[in-house]
Amino acid sequence: MVDLDDLVKSALAEDLGRGDLTSRAVIAPDVRCRATALAKAAGVVSGLIPFSRTFTEVDASVVVELLVEDGDEVEEGTELAHVSGPARSVLAAERVALNFLGHLSGVATLTRRYVRECEGTGSAILCTRKTLPGLRALEREAVGHGGGRLHRAGLDDGILIKDNHVRLAGGVAEAVSRAKENAPHTLRIEVEVETLDQLEEALSAGSDVVLLDNADLDTVKRAVEVVDGRAPLEVSGGVRLEDVADLASAGDVLISVGRLTHSAPALDVSLELEG
Amino acid sequence: MVDLDDLVKSALAEDLGRGDLTSRAVIAPDVRCRATALAKAAGVVSGLIPFSRTFTEVDASVVVELLVEDGDEVEEGTELAHVSGPARSVLAAERVALNFLGHLSGVATLTRRYVRECEGTGSAILCTRKTLPGLRALEREAVGHGGGRLHRAGLDDGILIKDNHVRLAGGVAEAVSRAKENAPHTLRIEVEVETLDQLEEALSAGSDVVLLDNADLDTVKRAVEVVDGRAPLEVSGGVRLEDVADLASAGDVLISVGRLTHSAPALDVSLELEG
Amino acid sequence: MVDLDDLVKSALAEDLGRGDLTSRAVIAPDVRCRATALAKAAGVVSGLIPFSRTFTEVDASVVVELLVEDGDEVEEGTELAHVSGPARSVLAAERVALNFLGHLSGVATLTRRYVRECEGTGSAILCTRKTLPGLRALEREAVGHGGGRLHRAGLDDGILIKDNHVRLAGGVAEAVSRAKENAPHTLRIEVEVETLDQLEEALSAGSDVVLLDNADLDTVKRAVEVVDGRAPLEVSGGVRLEDVADLASAGDVLISVGRLTHSAPALDVSLELEG
Amino acid sequence: MVDLDDLVKSALAEDLGRGDLTSRAVIAPDVRCRATALAKAAGVVSGLIPFSRTFTEVDASVVVELLVEDGDEVEEGTELAHVSGPARSVLAAERVALNFLGHLSGVATLTRRYVRECEGTGSAILCTRKTLPGLRALEREAVGHGGGRLHRAGLDDGILIKDNHVRLAGGVAEAVSRAKENAPHTLRIEVEVETLDQLEEALSAGSDVVLLDNADLDTVKRAVEVVDGRAPLEVSGGVRLEDVADLASAGDVLISVGRLTHSAPALDVSLELEG
Amino acid sequence: MVDLDDLVKSALAEDLGRGDLTSRAVIAPDVRCRATALAKAAGVVSGLIPFSRTFTEVDASVVVELLVEDGDEVEEGTELAHVSGPARSVLAAERVALNFLGHLSGVATLTRRYVRECEGTGSAILCTRKTLPGLRALEREAVGHGGGRLHRAGLDDGILIKDNHVRLAGGVAEAVSRAKENAPHTLRIEVEVETLDQLEEALSAGSDVVLLDNADLDTVKRAVEVVDGRAPLEVSGGVRLEDVADLASAGDVLISVGRLTHSAPALDVSLELEG
Amino acid sequence: MVDLDDLVKSALAEDLGRGDLTSRAVIAPDVRCRATALAKAAGVVSGLIPFSRTFTEVDASVVVELLVEDGDEVEEGTELAHVSGPARSVLAAERVALNFLGHLSGVATLTRRYVRECEGTGSAILCTRKTLPGLRALEREAVGHGGGRLHRAGLDDGILIKDNHVRLAGGVAEAVSRAKENAPHTLRIEVEVETLDQLEEALSAGSDVVLLDNADLDTVKRAVEVVDGRAPLEVSGGVRLEDVADLASAGDVLISVGRLTHSAPALDVSLELEG
Repeated sequence: MVDLDDLVKSALAEDLGRGDLTSRAVIAPDVRCRATALAKAAGVVSGLIPFSRTFTEVDASVVVELLVEDGDEVEEGTELAHVSGPARSVLAAERVALNFLGHLSGVATLTRRYVRECEGTGSAILCTRKTLPGLRALEREAVGHGGGRLHRAGLDDGILIKDNHVRLAGGVAEAVSRAKENAPHTLRIEVEVETLDQLEEALSAGSDVVLLDNADLDTVKRAVEVVDGRAPLEVSGGVRLEDVADLASAGDVLISVGRLTHSAPALDVSLELEG
Repeated sequence: MVDLDDLVKSALAEDLGRGDLTSRAVIAPDVRCRATALAKAAGVVSGLIPFSRTFTEVDASVVVELLVEDGDEVEEGTELAHVSGPARSVLAAERVALNFLGHLSGVATLTRRYVRECEGTGSAILCTRKTLPGLRALEREAVGHGGGRLHRAGLDDGILIKDNHVRLAGGVAEAVSRAKENAPHTLRIEVEVETLDQLEEALSAGSDVVLLDNADLDTVKRAVEVVDGRAPLEVSGGVRLEDVADLASAGDVLISVGRLTHSAPALDVSLELEG
Repeated sequence: MVDLDDLVKSALAEDLGRGDLTSRAVIAPDVRCRATALAKAAGVVSGLIPFSRTFTEVDASVVVELLVEDGDEVEEGTELAHVSGPARSVLAAERVALNFLGHLSGVATLTRRYVRECEGTGSAILCTRKTLPGLRALEREAVGHGGGRLHRAGLDDGILIKDNHVRLAGGVAEAVSRAKENAPHTLRIEVEVETLDQLEEALSAGSDVVLLDNADLDTVKRAVEVVDGRAPLEVSGGVRLEDVADLASAGDVLISVGRLTHSAPALDVSLELEG
Repeated sequence: MVDLDDLVKSALAEDLGRGDLTSRAVIAPDVRCRATALAKAAGVVSGLIPFSRTFTEVDASVVVELLVEDGDEVEEGTELAHVSGPARSVLAAERVALNFLGHLSGVATLTRRYVRECEGTGSAILCTRKTLPGLRALEREAVGHGGGRLHRAGLDDGILIKDNHVRLAGGVAEAVSRAKENAPHTLRIEVEVETLDQLEEALSAGSDVVLLDNADLDTVKRAVEVVDGRAPLEVSGGVRLEDVADLASAGDVLISVGRLTHSAPALDVSLELEG
Repeated sequence: MVDLDDLVKSALAEDLGRGDLTSRAVIAPDVRCRATALAKAAGVVSGLIPFSRTFTEVDASVVVELLVEDGDEVEEGTELAHVSGPARSVLAAERVALNFLGHLSGVATLTRRYVRECEGTGSAILCTRKTLPGLRALEREAVGHGGGRLHRAGLDDGILIKDNHVRLAGGVAEAVSRAKENAPHTLRIEVEVETLDQLEEALSAGSDVVLLDNADLDTVKRAVEVVDGRAPLEVSGGVRLEDVADLASAGDVLISVGRLTHSAPALDVSLELEG
Repeated sequence: MVDLDDLVKSALAEDLGRGDLTSRAVIAPDVRCRATALAKAAGVVSGLIPFSRTFTEVDASVVVELLVEDGDEVEEGTELAHVSGPARSVLAAERVALNFLGHLSGVATLTRRYVRECEGTGSAILCTRKTLPGLRALEREAVGHGGGRLHRAGLDDGILIKDNHVRLAGGVAEAVSRAKENAPHTLRIEVEVETLDQLEEALSAGSDVVLLDNADLDTVKRAVEVVDGRAPLEVSGGVRLEDVADLASAGDVLISVGRLTHSAPALDVSLELEG
């Protein structure tokens, strides 16, 4: 939560610099206004907290009344929030507040689309570490608002042995064995494999979870059979929205999708002044 | 430049937290590696400096050799950089470095597509303040690498009277007049209008630049005639790639495009270990 | 506004260090006091906000009641504010609060003297970037309280081509031409010249504003004729208080004065304990 | 020393903001230059370290060669330093570097004038806590360069019982007695008095040092007699340059002067481009 | 006080990182709880302020009701505070809050034991600069709560010439003489000696205080005679609890004890959930 | 690693404040010295990196030559490091550097004693979150140097359901079940129990690890039988050095010990000037 304050402050600093010259020149200091945040397209809302915090950071007297909740699915034209207060303050915060809301709602909206494709299966959608610099915590919450599940938050809260680790360690079994020896007892060991042979090697070495990267649908199906419930199976690798339903039906898999966070188009949101 | 260091540090803090548990568990501290950053799709490169800085911030002994320059157009499979050093350090920085490079190259690539559509006209593509929180300076550079032009960087380095200001001030002429009276003599006055009448009112009131928002192609053409060279004319409002050529040909206009920065999909880049 | 908090905190840290040893040793923790800030000389007040903030930063329970406003002209002996609260807190903040108030009122007072000399003319007094490190924003406000106008706030919110730029660019016309090509469309181009020939060259090259540096009164008068309303004319260079009236009468010029901020003597202010 | 870096960075941030627009627009990135810092008036130099650090903070490749030392007395026209490096970097740092040098040399110069007046006596000039917010450490060094002596640096490294403390404690003797009981054994007790009676009371109560505030010359002379070597005697209160010689000759006193730091006019310094 | 906030924030950041995974997984967000902090051993309490601040820093809605005061001597089983609020917030802050309280109460408790041994003598117990990095201010307060007296807080608020200084200066007399010449007039001069000859040398040179290091009881007694009230005498050097009474009775000495802060075992404190 | 720099800087700031008055007064700026860090008692070394960094942070020209490594067991009198450089710099850093080294070596030394008692068994010693505020990362390394194993580093990198969580969740089984549902797939679930019934309940509910708190030796032995290799078993609760051997022999258990970090007495280390 401390982080959010810092993030909002730094986003405001980036935009405001030494202050809003236009409002100072054009609007008298005592003018007040009331405005409404609108969704100009359908989607899933996320980012209401940084949206709201941006206004109150600029001016604690601005009042933001939220009309929906993070995670809500809204139609085009839905009113998301009312904002009222000194006009200079509202206008100074407007752009940054919308930048948060538009991006995070974009992430939630794309996630929801992927999640919809998994409905009725035992599979789940996960985010990855392919996030935009500085925005990971918020983007992870947006994925949650969209219905996705979380993966580890960083390099320090999970063991995921990737292909590069495997290569440097000299093989899947050796890498898993080292991890079991050195990792804290509180963490599971997950290892990335690219073939079914490696998958079997990983399980034999005692890996707790296996990640199958860049496999086609058939390979995933055969991997599900190989694993046979011995461990959770994660799949990844450029998973497109049109392919996710088939993948989700191939077995109970964890599907991790980088584009949820690195390529989600913004949801179109705006702030309309009343009166 | 100070900002870049802070940004890189905070992006690393976000990912590394208390350190890379996997590498510590699996890779011996004295193992070294050499890797290559690859473009896995065609595009325009941007972000080589934060990419490089991320590695050296983690470990000053990592050497990054850049093989292309920001702004270069590359084919799928192009090698972008060599990275060599202690394996733990290279792997600790990999994801954050790629997150910078992928996003910024995505922005540059999309910008270049828009710019291409304007070639041979007197029109130009500009970015807006619709940037992702914390990343504005880098995204603006990426727009430059893509061939776009810059608008004001924030609320404090330009006067742009938007529709909300006009409403609060009581009209275009009144708003322009106040701005001329109060703004520093070093700044031009730009005002946003929505109709040709307002456009004429803005010019009469002495506005130095006019921004026509959300106008259709015909209106833009007529606006060009109305302005008749008296001031630069900027147009904006959800400009799609397929429409930009016509717009650019409607006259010498400044076309500002929010999606360059808020909705550009990442360019697919990866780091391949050698040997 | 964030900046002000940081500035107050750092000024307090500078003075308080690990705490006020004298008050701790001499005054019981529950003693309260009431004090009055006095102007011990006539002048223009500025800095009431940092003055007030310094007390509340030390102890949020201290109450500061302002009796005048920034920009007010006061006589010797005028009461400026009442301060009441725990005595240890009031005394801990006293010196830093007065240091802000004395310096900024000094700047406002000197500015007012210059501004008085321009009354009845179309000329104005401007501040420069010759400010004391860390204090620019406050000093600029103090200039405003004194009746002065603002110039650009820093290197990033205006284009002012100085003599050194002209030399490195290879001449006035070339420098102006480059600036017109590269600068954002939101900024005017101002160029510094030293002769009337250069002035003409600047205007021909399309400079929006011209700064004439270190010229004598006659040259300024001739410059006004040369410009003939084509662009604003700024003059600068060690302008003394005794010369400013003549300069202001030479035509409608912008007179920028470094000593407003770098050499204004402090206004004598003190805090008197009541009872 | 950490402090200096922070101070230089924040002074640069204040001036540079998002960067030097003019140099970027007008000067090619590979142009280099060489410049000379000049004293345009006679004075005592101080601030060479922050001057130099400002350039290298902007760009570590800029080379600053100092031609004089802090504390040196220079004539008008003296060359103080050579600066060479990328032109954009030199020009970006110029103003901030000169702002440091001009202000601090102004403090040193004024201090030297006061010190000169004491030559041949046993009296000394001291600075006070009436410094400009954020600049105390540098201003104290400047006072040292001018030949002044230092007082306590803040509220936490000395015991100085001022008039307000005396009033709240209920008298000089009571205040001194409390201080002797509560202060660390490493500190002397100094108390401010306004009359000779109080002075005697202070000494009787065991004060280690006495400060006589706002006394006329005769009173100071009599105070010297009263003290009679039992303790150091400090005098303060609007001491003007024209009065200091008499004061210094009244006995061996410590003369503290607020205007050394709060009202010293800047020394005129500039940076001249060569070639 | 600013420091305390930073310290609490950084201690929380250290423990919370990206948040409390267990509470998030196991406890619903709207569950509230009430808990009691207990002393599980007898001792002297210190650290109630950072204890309390830790909870409110995590969540301003948590209410901490203190049942004892810093400096109170408590029995095993004493209730120290009630804490109530959202369960997730209380549990997130618990460990850090207890870490402060346990350590600081440990310091106060050990100090009190030493102080008890001095009762009825004119001697006092002092802390040293042998504190744990980052915790000095709090540990010094804990020493005060235990009844100890304070020494200088750092290298900048006192003159203490240690054996290494003496060696580098070329002797006790020379070192004292330099200090008298160069130190501000507000500070006493203290010098560390190891023999009675050095002690006499120190006093003759005008040292205001003498520190006798690592002397046995007899030497201390003789030192008291040598000093004969001419100056305060401090003794130090691995003073054990069982030896302090004899030392305190040897004369009126200041006994400084490093282990008060560097080796005090924590007081056992815990937080018990009610209901 | 960034953290270490910040920690060293803040520990130095705490001690140095505005600078070392004694060295400035007594030692000429050009005096150099050479000193040796000595262990004045036997123990295990830890903290050489912060020790060394403290000197170079004060002055990059100070050279520290390490003579032992972290984790080395040393006899009384062992030379640990040579330090040479400007005398003022060495003395300014001395105390803080030793404070790090003494405390961390104390932690490593105590840990080694506990670890010794487990030799020849399958049990291990672990640290806890009962660390001193701000010092956790260094203390955890010190535990590693002593031969201990690590537990989770904070609340965000592991799931440990404590008694308070169990109570609020309504029982062991319910708490474990919630954790399995909500926690990331990368983490094991550990739950604290107090009875053998709860232990069985935890295993049945699918807990991956069980922590038995405050049990006597017999209960631990029976717990080992109950668990029978189904999951790792951790034991905790005021484990004294004299009891640890029996505990370690009761079965293969993880023994977590708070006093390693919250109550380890400092190792006596000093810096002796040569010559």
